[in-house]
Amino acid sequence: MNKITILIHCEDQTGIIADTTNFIAGKGGNIVYIDQYVDREKNRFFMRLESEFESNSFETEIFKACFKSDLADKFQMKWRIYSSEKKPKMALFISKYDHCLYDLLGRYNSGELNLEIPFIISNHLDLKPIADSFKIPFHHIPVTKDTKSEAEDKQLKLLEEHNIDFIVLARYMQIVSSKLINRYPNKIINIHHSFLPAFVGAKPYHSAYKRGVKIIGATSHYVTEELDAGPIIEQDVTRVSHAHAISDLISKGRDLEKIVLATAVKLHADRKVMVYNNKTVIFT
Amino acid sequence: MNKITILIHCEDQTGIIADTTNFIAGKGGNIVYIDQYVDREKNRFFMRLESEFESNSFETEIFKACFKSDLADKFQMKWRIYSSEKKPKMALFISKYDHCLYDLLGRYNSGELNLEIPFIISNHLDLKPIADSFKIPFHHIPVTKDTKSEAEDKQLKLLEEHNIDFIVLARYMQIVSSKLINRYPNKIINIHHSFLPAFVGAKPYHSAYKRGVKIIGATSHYVTEELDAGPIIEQDVTRVSHAHAISDLISKGRDLEKIVLATAVKLHADRKVMVYNNKTVIFT
Amino acid sequence: MNKITILIHCEDQTGIIADTTNFIAGKGGNIVYIDQYVDREKNRFFMRLESEFESNSFETEIFKACFKSDLADKFQMKWRIYSSEKKPKMALFISKYDHCLYDLLGRYNSGELNLEIPFIISNHLDLKPIADSFKIPFHHIPVTKDTKSEAEDKQLKLLEEHNIDFIVLARYMQIVSSKLINRYPNKIINIHHSFLPAFVGAKPYHSAYKRGVKIIGATSHYVTEELDAGPIIEQDVTRVSHAHAISDLISKGRDLEKIVLATAVKLHADRKVMVYNNKTVIFT
Amino acid sequence: MNKITILIHCEDQTGIIADTTNFIAGKGGNIVYIDQYVDREKNRFFMRLESEFESNSFETEIFKACFKSDLADKFQMKWRIYSSEKKPKMALFISKYDHCLYDLLGRYNSGELNLEIPFIISNHLDLKPIADSFKIPFHHIPVTKDTKSEAEDKQLKLLEEHNIDFIVLARYMQIVSSKLINRYPNKIINIHHSFLPAFVGAKPYHSAYKRGVKIIGATSHYVTEELDAGPIIEQDVTRVSHAHAISDLISKGRDLEKIVLATAVKLHADRKVMVYNNKTVIFT
Repeated sequence: MNKITILIHCEDQTGIIADTTNFIAGKGGNIVYIDQYVDREKNRFFMRLESEFESNSFETEIFKACFKSDLADKFQMKWRIYSSEKKPKMALFISKYDHCLYDLLGRYNSGELNLEIPFIISNHLDLKPIADSFKIPFHHIPVTKDTKSEAEDKQLKLLEEHNIDFIVLARYMQIVSSKLINRYPNKIINIHHSFLPAFVGAKPYHSAYKRGVKIIGATSHYVTEELDAGPIIEQDVTRVSHAHAISDLISKGRDLEKIVLATAVKLHADRKVMVYNNKTVIFT
Repeated sequence: MNKITILIHCEDQTGIIADTTNFIAGKGGNIVYIDQYVDREKNRFFMRLESEFESNSFETEIFKACFKSDLADKFQMKWRIYSSEKKPKMALFISKYDHCLYDLLGRYNSGELNLEIPFIISNHLDLKPIADSFKIPFHHIPVTKDTKSEAEDKQLKLLEEHNIDFIVLARYMQIVSSKLINRYPNKIINIHHSFLPAFVGAKPYHSAYKRGVKIIGATSHYVTEELDAGPIIEQDVTRVSHAHAISDLISKGRDLEKIVLATAVKLHADRKVMVYNNKTVIFT
Repeated sequence: MNKITILIHCEDQTGIIADTTNFIAGKGGNIVYIDQYVDREKNRFFMRLESEFESNSFETEIFKACFKSDLADKFQMKWRIYSSEKKPKMALFISKYDHCLYDLLGRYNSGELNLEIPFIISNHLDLKPIADSFKIPFHHIPVTKDTKSEAEDKQLKLLEEHNIDFIVLARYMQIVSSKLINRYPNKIINIHHSFLPAFVGAKPYHSAYKRGVKIIGATSHYVTEELDAGPIIEQDVTRVSHAHAISDLISKGRDLEKIVLATAVKLHADRKVMVYNNKTVIFT
Repeated sequence: MNKITILIHCEDQTGIIADTTNFIAGKGGNIVYIDQYVDREKNRFFMRLESEFESNSFETEIFKACFKSDLADKFQMKWRIYSSEKKPKMALFISKYDHCLYDLLGRYNSGELNLEIPFIISNHLDLKPIADSFKIPFHHIPVTKDTKSEAEDKQLKLLEEHNIDFIVLARYMQIVSSKLINRYPNKIINIHHSFLPAFVGAKPYHSAYKRGVKIIGATSHYVTEELDAGPIIEQDVTRVSHAHAISDLISKGRDLEKIVLATAVKLHADRKVMVYNNKTVIFT
């Protein structure tokens, strides 16, 4: 049994659903999941489909070619088709904070994440022992003001050698340059430790404390050139009070960051996220 | 423009989605919403569709007849088709608590609820002034042990005269008998003031206080013959502490009850709920 | 039995708690509630006490005088003492939105709020029937650019005639001028329909939609001269998705606004809120 | 500077707070935290105090003796006094599930937990590599029906040799016998994977799925002889839908279990929990 996932978006038009489901039925597929959404403001149609095919009669590449000529061209679709046989490859960028790292590797180890982690990159050596204990290759690529461009070249080389599909910045603490962003558009996932768009930039827990908010949050988003302004994948919040010092906010925030980042990683790896107009459409 | 909503469930089989979307396309419909779900354990397929048709070329009754002969019989579907032209009619059963009543009538008045309320029934006169201030007919039908059957006959008469589609027990405080339940299966919505299945029956806030729980809840469900055991439509919870007395739980619970009941009423009135195997499938 | 509530803040010093509890014991009081908090950053001590006294031996004014001379002067306390005999008087300012009005009046009617509402002020006549049905005096004071100052004079006259203690802007939709703010410092409660400090100003649901947030919020705060920047009393949030149109955000937001505003009103009326350094200390 | 934490409960009487704060002032202490609560139903008074003393003039044992003779005997207090110098020692009991283990050890490693973990006990060898990677001694004590009593003797020996203060069952999957419970009353913390009192006993996620709940939970409680009926320390919940299979509930539940257990462990280690009448009083 071969299972494929199809993601489509195009201008909203009559007949897309009927034509698409017909096309799949004609190829012998059985649709096991269908969800769609129309952005009325932008008149944009989005759909996610999962379909099963008998393995012996199915070739993904031929299916893609037919899909393009018979369907995608007609409706001028933007589309992606994934086979469940191939797990996405994720590179992990870290620095000195260990909580998101422990959390993601713990989940990875217990089989909760449907992906592969070929390696970890860090600008510091502090967390190497954790990578070692999980037996994941660790590459130390220091970054200074002067060596940033050179460091990114090293990163890109590693990413391309391993055919990395997406990058997760698990509290990486460095601003990623456009070189990397353009190579991996909507494929670099960051965790920001505030409820965006509140408290953009550095030290959001300090700002939250100063403003006296009663709830703090964390936000996972795709990295774009504008800082902390990319498409939001997931957010979560927790209640705080006047009695919480900044250190308490940081401590409570760590739990938010872990869960929000892990949720975003799972949604991306399961191909449930589409991006349009700097916003995400998430089919769950 | 005529808009219809179709709810289907049947044994899971190949081709249901393709055949259904084809059928609608063949009738000139444009699908604007589709969502489906397969209960793998029971091998049951569920689908909700919304489709728009040009008004002058469309007759709901003819469409239903074709749907049955061309599609529903083939897949042995259980199905319902609603036209958006007809708002469901809801009867409100109340007793002496006013919070859910104020909440529902406030929403009704501001146009938030897509339904009609032809009348309110109560076993007490206490809340008549509220019904009057919202200009909704109020029927006082007292219920005692001896007159219960007779009272239900009066209720049924009113319900049938007004072609009531569903009943909402807004803290009605009476156990509804099988006579009413069988006449309105999965069409009587109750609000229970606990996080079911914890604290079934009377005085759940007292039980929650005694057990020392840190979270209390409310549950809206369809009424079945077994007390507080019907299909759950919606639940919500709120945090409490040792410092909350029973009266605090009751007070905090009122807000939960209002929101949970209103959410359930909206889901039902918008035809987003299906029931199977004493559980709900909710398409949002 | 006479019950008083004491709110204190002063520079943090040794012996405040012992001296205060001693003082109360010396006056024959039994402390039934004590909570304190120290803002380490500002070295500021905050305390809330409730104490019961035998009625026949107790005069609030004499107690206050002794408290000042024996205790408050020594520690240079800012302090307030309230007798439970006197309920605070709240003025309700409204415009055209009815949801917060229905909610507050429903709670008021059922005895949930420990306060009095001598009157409602509105710049429009639309909601007069609701005020009438709850039998609360309704004053129509239209506000235009040219008449704003004159309108505020009329408001102030009413507020002072009725010895109003605090004002609640229940979606009043007008910016209140410094004349009113200075007369009622930290006594004007507003509800803002976003998770502040995100989306300050007009049309926050539109901004939230545009940014593609996954959670929306509401914030109740004291009004200060800087727009939406006053001390936050309460916040709450709810989850949304790409599938929610702006109208859905507005609808879901209404429930947040009601609950957040009602919570803030209760905290204020129960004298549980202190303000320092543009932040609230809330003793629950 | 020496900091002590005092936990008291006794029958509610006039003057407890004044006498206690006086006593501490008399010993040269500065109260930096005070919170109290009265259970009106049981007429029981609870208080938690933190007080700082100059180190050179302070002996904890002498303070305790004075506290007993001068204060505790008078009011017939149940009391405990802890010095901040001594961290509590926690034993970790595990079996085959690794998520709570990773979570607790990750927090322990990053300094988030104010306690010591002298060793881990497991009835299986599966998770030994994790204990090793965190460099915590691991004792494999297999448990079968026939060897249960003998295994508990081995456990008790280890617990006593290391002066263990409390035990955490991190998904230990074994029912602990009264021998251990009586030795560590209200000192054995369990995590149950449901929102108690719903779904007591085995396979709660299966029961939750069958009942069709819309929210699942986790509960951390002290172990008593009655299964899953001990005093609740912490609970949390998360929303689910019909579309979640049992495996999804288990996966979502893991995150709840981790956070709820970690929260309970922190509250206990920070001496913020008191137990009375099978309920907890938690001072935060």
